[in-house]
Amino acid sequence: MKNFKLLLLGLCVVMCACSAQTQTSMTNEYGTEWQWENGTIVVKTPERPAGQKSVLGLTVPKMESVRVGFVGLGMRGPGAVERFTYIPGTQVVALCDYEQSRAEKCQKYLKKASMPKAAIYSGEKGYEELCKRDDIDLVYIAADWLHHFSVAKCALENGKHVAIEVPSAMNLQECWDLINLSETTRKHCFILENCCYDWYEMNTLNMAQNGVFGEIIRAQGAYIHNLAPFWNHYWKAGENDKLGWRLDYNMRHRGDVYATHGLGPVAQVLDIHRGDRMKTLVAMDTKSVIGKALVEERTDSVCNNFRNGDHTTTMIRTENGKVIEIQHNVMTPQPYNRLYQLTGTKGFANKYPVRGYALDAEQLSASGVQPKIDDLNSHGFLPKAEMDALVEKYQHPILKKYGELAKEVGGHGGMDFIMDCRLVYCLQNGLPLDMDVYDLAEWCCLAELGTLSMDNNCAAVAFPDFTRGEWNVVKGYKHAYASPEVEKSTEEKAEAFTAELKKLGAIEWAEAEK
Amino acid sequence: MKNFKLLLLGLCVVMCACSAQTQTSMTNEYGTEWQWENGTIVVKTPERPAGQKSVLGLTVPKMESVRVGFVGLGMRGPGAVERFTYIPGTQVVALCDYEQSRAEKCQKYLKKASMPKAAIYSGEKGYEELCKRDDIDLVYIAADWLHHFSVAKCALENGKHVAIEVPSAMNLQECWDLINLSETTRKHCFILENCCYDWYEMNTLNMAQNGVFGEIIRAQGAYIHNLAPFWNHYWKAGENDKLGWRLDYNMRHRGDVYATHGLGPVAQVLDIHRGDRMKTLVAMDTKSVIGKALVEERTDSVCNNFRNGDHTTTMIRTENGKVIEIQHNVMTPQPYNRLYQLTGTKGFANKYPVRGYALDAEQLSASGVQPKIDDLNSHGFLPKAEMDALVEKYQHPILKKYGELAKEVGGHGGMDFIMDCRLVYCLQNGLPLDMDVYDLAEWCCLAELGTLSMDNNCAAVAFPDFTRGEWNVVKGYKHAYASPEVEKSTEEKAEAFTAELKKLGAIEWAEAEK
Repeated sequence: MKNFKLLLLGLCVVMCACSAQTQTSMTNEYGTEWQWENGTIVVKTPERPAGQKSVLGLTVPKMESVRVGFVGLGMRGPGAVERFTYIPGTQVVALCDYEQSRAEKCQKYLKKASMPKAAIYSGEKGYEELCKRDDIDLVYIAADWLHHFSVAKCALENGKHVAIEVPSAMNLQECWDLINLSETTRKHCFILENCCYDWYEMNTLNMAQNGVFGEIIRAQGAYIHNLAPFWNHYWKAGENDKLGWRLDYNMRHRGDVYATHGLGPVAQVLDIHRGDRMKTLVAMDTKSVIGKALVEERTDSVCNNFRNGDHTTTMIRTENGKVIEIQHNVMTPQPYNRLYQLTGTKGFANKYPVRGYALDAEQLSASGVQPKIDDLNSHGFLPKAEMDALVEKYQHPILKKYGELAKEVGGHGGMDFIMDCRLVYCLQNGLPLDMDVYDLAEWCCLAELGTLSMDNNCAAVAFPDFTRGEWNVVKGYKHAYASPEVEKSTEEKAEAFTAELKKLGAIEWAEAEK
Repeated sequence: MKNFKLLLLGLCVVMCACSAQTQTSMTNEYGTEWQWENGTIVVKTPERPAGQKSVLGLTVPKMESVRVGFVGLGMRGPGAVERFTYIPGTQVVALCDYEQSRAEKCQKYLKKASMPKAAIYSGEKGYEELCKRDDIDLVYIAADWLHHFSVAKCALENGKHVAIEVPSAMNLQECWDLINLSETTRKHCFILENCCYDWYEMNTLNMAQNGVFGEIIRAQGAYIHNLAPFWNHYWKAGENDKLGWRLDYNMRHRGDVYATHGLGPVAQVLDIHRGDRMKTLVAMDTKSVIGKALVEERTDSVCNNFRNGDHTTTMIRTENGKVIEIQHNVMTPQPYNRLYQLTGTKGFANKYPVRGYALDAEQLSASGVQPKIDDLNSHGFLPKAEMDALVEKYQHPILKKYGELAKEVGGHGGMDFIMDCRLVYCLQNGLPLDMDVYDLAEWCCLAELGTLSMDNNCAAVAFPDFTRGEWNVVKGYKHAYASPEVEKSTEEKAEAFTAELKKLGAIEWAEAEK
């Protein structure tokens, strides 16, 4: 009896101690460990291995030419191949797709540009051979979402830089793995977020960085794009795949699975991990009505668990007290909208459905544009003349350099081409890229963090610091530029490279014709 | 030693039991008790006293005339007095303001309308005498926010119906008190939410209720109105009041303190407590930059605790899986925007900055309007002709009845007048009012619930059920109408009453002239 009482006493003491001091650690469907801390969900941040350094501001030696292998030639890939044939100092060395014919089809762009044929890879593991080549600098990945990570991992492990279509990582584990790979291999891991290069976004970024709107305290972004006309065009893995990979993915995963188009441009304006950081996230979604119906139409059965709500909203508060709001709706009928909007202490910018800036006369003058009308105030948008003058004054240097050619080459109106140009420019000039692997992680993790929130009744979730302590080292987001002399030298080498390449290509294709 | 061990054992057992089973109950700055339940904040809902019944669908006997006492004649009040002089079957019996001169000033509207002078009340407690009068049916309250509740309580306790300017209750306690007062006195407690009566909102509500947009799964609303030109016009309580009551209130209170203009119209579309209910709320605000600066300008000192963030966003998920988003920003420069937007499974409606509807050809036809153009789709807004036809077809009956006169009488373009007309119409015809005390509570509680959320790192908050169990009794939001015969009879009596009143008034004012 005495021993029993002692045992009970001991057990109670231990239980009290446990419940008082430790929290229960939980693991979600993606394998992420998390726990409650005063009503906020905190995910476990893996420690950076000793000796491993961040890739903040990573540069690699200049490249006279950028040799590229393309993996994934379905919907986005071929356009990228074609765009690259317009960029001097690059070579399309290899083309890879699950289906050989899709890879072969892209040779026509090389022929048209008078460039040598690329090597062809195909099948489920074709990319592995491509990644092992020693004549490739960059692997450009436009495969389906489920293969983004595996191809990128393989490329990085084989010492290649990677550029990955969005979303570039599908969950936190992939985010951390890419970060670790980039940090250990010291290779670039670039998120191909084209919307950062669109006209309104670039000019408005330039205005914001020059104080036109005062301090930006709130920003919106979204991917609101009814995909009804597109679902059936996504590749299907055989006859039993009734949905296609994109609809299937939406069915199986909750949260904003496609946040980067909306979040990218605003994260740049808000200097995320360049003086500020995303700190707290909350998400809320509607039920699924259309998603569920799409699956039922195609599978002739009842769908009781379409995980992705028809409309998902994610709110994020930053360390410096800003609020970001990102929306996702690929289901319901409405006009396309990326919601790009900046709320500043001295002005306001809004892109959809009509582009506008709201500034009062004083702020417009202070921004270097003299208003022509008498009673200009911020209760309405600038009249066309004033807006044009403001845009003229603050046209982004990157648009000045690439804008005209981009409109001809195309790709979502040109922004795709500008993105590719900047990627190549930075690689050729040995500069940091416009987006680093931490941007990739920050913009791609909303799906899992949002799921954690919503699966716990919209609880607050602490945003991990992917830089692991360095979010406040760089002060302010900047595009990198080479000096005019270096730029000129680089361009000359690039032009020369391409001229040679076209000669070789011309000979090759002529031979092939015989 | 044995006793000590037994004591320790006992303590441990008790502690384990306690920590395992009970949650700590906390009390916030407003006196509301709440506790954590699995990461969600749950506020205590007071039990309905035995015998007390809800006022869902409350009606009172028809009134041949509605006799009104107005309390609060600063910014909103005088316009209301003037509007009432255009509504047959009403009488402005009493006018009350803290300052006698402001009450006296309103006599001019009665003179202009040839109606008898009203009794004048003033001073801090003038409204108490007004509420005791036995010749008043309705007390119309447009005092400053801090007096909304005290005046309403006094009026209800004195057996009067009340109509209260927004926000009609400033915290949960006031919400529950008004509910209990309305339920015990069986008097109407009406929130004067004018935005429910604006043209786009009413027509769009009619369309939504007729299925034009399919099922509405998401709705937005906001009060985005830069009050920079107005802060100095709010009444100041003496020389030491440097801010005025409205800026002072924003300084001391966090959360969306002015949610009703945005939330009212969408709550009606979503049948809140008429088949659906708001269930989970999360709020997030930016820091205060402008608010802080406004106080510092006026007080010549540092303001370190301006509680209301410059921009606050509140997200609410309903029982039926819809999401509502309400924003608040009275600080930064940007165009006025109530953000009214409906996302439906078959169509989309958006009011600002340009009014539009997005429907495809099939849905437009199904809604009874034949598209004139060939390739109409929902990727863009309806062209003007189609939109006009849709609005024509679905013009709200209430706008048909009051719209023309409202545009002449005015008040925010006419919506204020339509609201007052409907209030009087329902009272005269013995019908339920367009908004009940549960709407009042639901639309006014966002400030406190949001504060609870944000003071706890944006935690989820469970939305109280103000109907205490009856949110799903009425199916679908409806405006009440009398039969044509009853309506006609009521109108005739009303006209007769007003004709008599004007005769009396004419005599009175003529006498006064001598």
